[in-house]
Amino acid sequence: MSRLLLKNIELLDTPNGEKNCIAVENNHIVYVGNKLPESFIADEVIDGHGMLATAGMVNTHGHVSMTLLRSYADDMALMDWLENKIWPIEAKMNAKDIYWGAMLGIAEMLKSGTTSFADMYCFMDDVARAVAETGIRANLSRGLIGLGPDKDSKLEENTRLVKDWQGYDNGRIRITYGPHAPYTCPVDYLQQVVAAAEQNNAEIQMHLCETQGEVENCIKEHGLTPIALMNKLGMFEQGTIAAHCVYLSEADMDIMAEKHVRVAHNPQSNLKLASGIAPVARMLEKGICVGLGTDGASSNNNLDMLEECRATAMLHKTTTMNPLAIPAAKAWEMATENGAKVLGFEQLGKLIAGQKADIVLWNMHKPYWYPRHNKLSLLVYAASASDADTVLVDGKIVLQNGTMTLFDEEKIYAEASLRAQKLLLK
Amino acid sequence: MSRLLLKNIELLDTPNGEKNCIAVENNHIVYVGNKLPESFIADEVIDGHGMLATAGMVNTHGHVSMTLLRSYADDMALMDWLENKIWPIEAKMNAKDIYWGAMLGIAEMLKSGTTSFADMYCFMDDVARAVAETGIRANLSRGLIGLGPDKDSKLEENTRLVKDWQGYDNGRIRITYGPHAPYTCPVDYLQQVVAAAEQNNAEIQMHLCETQGEVENCIKEHGLTPIALMNKLGMFEQGTIAAHCVYLSEADMDIMAEKHVRVAHNPQSNLKLASGIAPVARMLEKGICVGLGTDGASSNNNLDMLEECRATAMLHKTTTMNPLAIPAAKAWEMATENGAKVLGFEQLGKLIAGQKADIVLWNMHKPYWYPRHNKLSLLVYAASASDADTVLVDGKIVLQNGTMTLFDEEKIYAEASLRAQKLLLK
Repeated sequence: MSRLLLKNIELLDTPNGEKNCIAVENNHIVYVGNKLPESFIADEVIDGHGMLATAGMVNTHGHVSMTLLRSYADDMALMDWLENKIWPIEAKMNAKDIYWGAMLGIAEMLKSGTTSFADMYCFMDDVARAVAETGIRANLSRGLIGLGPDKDSKLEENTRLVKDWQGYDNGRIRITYGPHAPYTCPVDYLQQVVAAAEQNNAEIQMHLCETQGEVENCIKEHGLTPIALMNKLGMFEQGTIAAHCVYLSEADMDIMAEKHVRVAHNPQSNLKLASGIAPVARMLEKGICVGLGTDGASSNNNLDMLEECRATAMLHKTTTMNPLAIPAAKAWEMATENGAKVLGFEQLGKLIAGQKADIVLWNMHKPYWYPRHNKLSLLVYAASASDADTVLVDGKIVLQNGTMTLFDEEKIYAEASLRAQKLLLK
Repeated sequence: MSRLLLKNIELLDTPNGEKNCIAVENNHIVYVGNKLPESFIADEVIDGHGMLATAGMVNTHGHVSMTLLRSYADDMALMDWLENKIWPIEAKMNAKDIYWGAMLGIAEMLKSGTTSFADMYCFMDDVARAVAETGIRANLSRGLIGLGPDKDSKLEENTRLVKDWQGYDNGRIRITYGPHAPYTCPVDYLQQVVAAAEQNNAEIQMHLCETQGEVENCIKEHGLTPIALMNKLGMFEQGTIAAHCVYLSEADMDIMAEKHVRVAHNPQSNLKLASGIAPVARMLEKGICVGLGTDGASSNNNLDMLEECRATAMLHKTTTMNPLAIPAAKAWEMATENGAKVLGFEQLGKLIAGQKADIVLWNMHKPYWYPRHNKLSLLVYAASASDADTVLVDGKIVLQNGTMTLFDEEKIYAEASLRAQKLLLK
């Protein structure tokens, strides 16, 4: 048994300056407060003086290896961007590109206080390997496009992924099926995906209702919205993470609430691609579980979850013209606790005894953390993700003094740069 | 004469990895490129290896001393927030509070790559002193509310400010008149302000068209929009910085273009207060000069201009449903060159010979700066303001290795914390 003590830390809901501690046994939190039981004898102690401890953030949607395409193409119309820039270069990416892209994205997430992420892409064994090596937690899926000759092999890959990685390292990796979107997956293919998911007892993640055009075309083709169509196909019985959900009818939201569809809201990606703004306040009113995500680095262009949390709190005050909509506490809950629920990770997202020890210590010795009228407000509205100093995932220290402990960051930057250069020359 | 050389730096528009240099003589840039004239012999050299050099950002609207109220009151309806939280505590603030609040805000700005800012508040001699001591550049005004018994003395204070500080330190401080808003300044008072500005050869900064209610009430009372009213009063002949401009008619924008009204766009403050989203793309089409601002830390809650730059590029793609609207280069121009024009600082905002030496070196050794397909895209869409490592204002090094050179940061954090605590007990 390993016993780790975080001492002299501050908490979101305790008075400013009060020193608290967190006791971790193996991969669980066993105590949070200012009166550590004498029976707890730590093997290792971290002094968190001047630091705020919170649960780690959960990034509920993205394509982590796309960090390799960060800054490659921006400020373009969607189809021009996809057809002339993104798809051609993606077609050249091999397993090594995917691995180093994932390493770069994971480094960025750990160093900015994100301890879990969702992914949908290709060469997913290599992404899983990156997750295994860096210590981060992830929900991974093979991106499934049901149009080309390789649609069946992709589905098989996803099933192999379930068999090889589901539950890895005490549940640190979860595998889901990843049908890409209504416009890239014909109905018969979606039926195969749902059947495979049911057979292998796995959930599903999918882009749904991202653009107005997608919804209009789906209604034209099937007489149903994407939500109504997926419901008819029985997808939601399987457990579904729906990414984006920008264009939803009241009836869609009623279905989602009833069938416990969980949502990955990606405010900055939706803004940057000019997709629109999701009706998040309304979804929350309906009781739908909404988490936050960055989407891939081609449409964001970073994996900074604190930015998404801030954008969520700010944006929806104006979309509802109500300054009380989505206060700081709700945005933070979405970035952590809700995110864990969206990705299906249990005992995760809160800093209390009994939860898994995914913890971030934020260095508050920066000008925007002063004065300290309200630490939660400072975290959500003022802090920088670069303040993440120490990060634990599943009880293991994966970032200390801002540096990754399990992998050489310099090697990641060098390899990712090299692979990006080579991609351009292919 | 002092001669400073920044060597081994990268520039936005040169190939990735190319080493360049910037030569500074006294307070001006005399050379930018990769072939330093042999005649330039530096007294001091900074090695900027791994750093990107840009012009400093210009924060065109704010109330810097409100950093003391950061996180004091959030997520409230506007009038509840003002009447029950902000105005009562502001009434208790004295000159020392204002000074230390300004120091805290200036520390935050310098450490995040902002080299100039605008301010409208009270005890402005103390703000000017903070500007003088820290080395930052500023355009300062006395906030003028024309309703109470002290309205005349406030106007006199503003005139004294012009006389004492206009042009200080080679133009590092500019003074403007600061009538607060149409709803706090009756017409006869505005006439006095415009007359005083004319007499003392100073420009004006004012909150204009921030909320729909303000515009509706102005039309009801005067039969004119705020823009049409100020135009009628001759304000724009004097040179005007209009903060917010969320609610504008086409006719308003035509007046603004014709009269060269310059705009401070504050996207995050407008979102957080549920004011709305300014028609920035349309203003730019009309040829109006739009810069960016943070507003005060009570409604933001930081003074991070890189966030505002990013928010501007992202938000207006969706408000126009056009992913080509406000590309990265335009957003960056707004944050720098346009900002300098808005505040009336000449020879400022670009990194070319002949400009004043307000320069930021950004440390690119962070995960989100990799790979480097496009440095401008990385800066605007991915970087963190905390990457600002070295900052020059008017040729002087005011930040080095992320630390202020002219003032003790620790003292600022301690004093600001203490004064904030005392304010609560008053």
